[in-house]
Amino acid sequence: MILGIDIGGTTSKLGLVRDGKVVARERIATTGHADDHAFADALAETAEQLISGHSEPFVGIGIGAPNANQLTGIIEMAPNLPWKHDVPLARMMSDRLGVPANLGNDANAAALGEWRYGAGRGIDDLLVVTLGTGVGSGFIVNGRLVLGSAGNAGELGHTILLPDGRACTCGRKGCLEAYVSIRGMLATYTEEGGAANPTDVKTIADLAHAGDTAAIACFQLTTEWLSIGLANAVCATGPKRIVLFGGIARNGDLLMAPLRERFHANLLNIYQGRVDLTVSALPDDDAALLGAAALGTL
Amino acid sequence: MILGIDIGGTTSKLGLVRDGKVVARERIATTGHADDHAFADALAETAEQLISGHSEPFVGIGIGAPNANQLTGIIEMAPNLPWKHDVPLARMMSDRLGVPANLGNDANAAALGEWRYGAGRGIDDLLVVTLGTGVGSGFIVNGRLVLGSAGNAGELGHTILLPDGRACTCGRKGCLEAYVSIRGMLATYTEEGGAANPTDVKTIADLAHAGDTAAIACFQLTTEWLSIGLANAVCATGPKRIVLFGGIARNGDLLMAPLRERFHANLLNIYQGRVDLTVSALPDDDAALLGAAALGTL
Repeated sequence: MILGIDIGGTTSKLGLVRDGKVVARERIATTGHADDHAFADALAETAEQLISGHSEPFVGIGIGAPNANQLTGIIEMAPNLPWKHDVPLARMMSDRLGVPANLGNDANAAALGEWRYGAGRGIDDLLVVTLGTGVGSGFIVNGRLVLGSAGNAGELGHTILLPDGRACTCGRKGCLEAYVSIRGMLATYTEEGGAANPTDVKTIADLAHAGDTAAIACFQLTTEWLSIGLANAVCATGPKRIVLFGGIARNGDLLMAPLRERFHANLLNIYQGRVDLTVSALPDDDAALLGAAALGTL
Repeated sequence: MILGIDIGGTTSKLGLVRDGKVVARERIATTGHADDHAFADALAETAEQLISGHSEPFVGIGIGAPNANQLTGIIEMAPNLPWKHDVPLARMMSDRLGVPANLGNDANAAALGEWRYGAGRGIDDLLVVTLGTGVGSGFIVNGRLVLGSAGNAGELGHTILLPDGRACTCGRKGCLEAYVSIRGMLATYTEEGGAANPTDVKTIADLAHAGDTAAIACFQLTTEWLSIGLANAVCATGPKRIVLFGGIARNGDLLMAPLRERFHANLLNIYQGRVDLTVSALPDDDAALLGAAALGTL
């Protein structure tokens, strides 16, 4: 039995995972604690309550968090978390609960979750791309997550898609994330002259289904941009499968169906027929916990 | 002692490598043989002559070739070689010379050569980019060359830099290779309104040094494009070092100096100070043989 912990900006979730299923879960606020030690105490207390209800041996902890460095076990100055300093949360939780702990960034957690429990099961050359507020990714090569020399590999969202393009939150211009994230799609809808004021992708999808031309164009452009970003990623590590994760990828007719076509059109000939594109097979509510737990199995 | 073989379109080179140095070398024509078996016979005969002059044990063969698949040991329908069918050259040479043989594509051979003998020695997260007629690359992750699920990973030259851009030899548009290769630079010089008719990069460099504005612009554009391509590659595997290989990279003042600046300007903040950019440390004449030999040490 593994404890998965998913650290979010406002809420942190805990889940006990057995055989690829979340068998018990709890959540606490991420904010409002005196400091990071008090937060770790609260996490540990909640974890102990969860564990006490189960008799199986509890063997490890996996923690997914923004700005987490898997090589060091440290959350590095995360802009969206309450603590602006480095927080060595892996060691803090391991000390409190007496089992090994692994920490990784949330996109890497998602990648490991898909690889161990989801749509990438058994695929040792895999790319997982998370489409949400931002665009994250995890490359798995030869059955191992690529961490890179400094522990921060896999930033597909920050590959430059259109040089000198849209401003990105990273301070540069033209990143893939500035186009194919939720924020990017809202910007595209506006750029295409949309009359409505959507605040989420679900609304853009509803508008597209109702015939709104800006919403339809928004999905078409998103599809084209994403297909190029994915075709480029294939050139790096040659994965056998790409798994897309997040609400945007749940748009089958508006995104996934045309995306498969455009992806193959934009894919280098030598990869044709050698890489497929699919959507996360993990239940939305549990994906982050399963991903975190997968970190705990390393 | 390893035998390195570098298969080119017109000439194939053989070299005996000991302690990272080519101690004996020979070459034969790639063309003009009755078939691929006759070619393998000629290679083996030349190899035996080389080996017979040396008393150390001869333990392996490494072969670098275009369109080579390292997973299968087969040269797959190479458009620039005399045989249009699949040639299982690794097995053919191993059978003839009685030692194990490894075959890999030339860019991967260059990557392994730099990693084992050159500017990437001891760097287990490395990216090697070859700038020549085309643009090749080899990603080394955790001390292993990334082959990908089908043996064809590492095609950085065919990542799309400018969607809908210049036609590329691969049949698509806007690939990095269409801009920063020899062919790409010649096209850029013409696009910039150059009055001369250079047929190689050396001539463009001479023109730039003489104040030709199109030649200067050509190097500036090449620098910017390459800096984006390299910054994007870093986002995939997070290498500690990038080694550039090939004559284009030998232009220190026109390319490498401004490239370092533009690369860092285009690099995502989390990689700043964590990846450096350098030029091949292998002697030009021996680099392909040393790379091929490095394949033979796997």
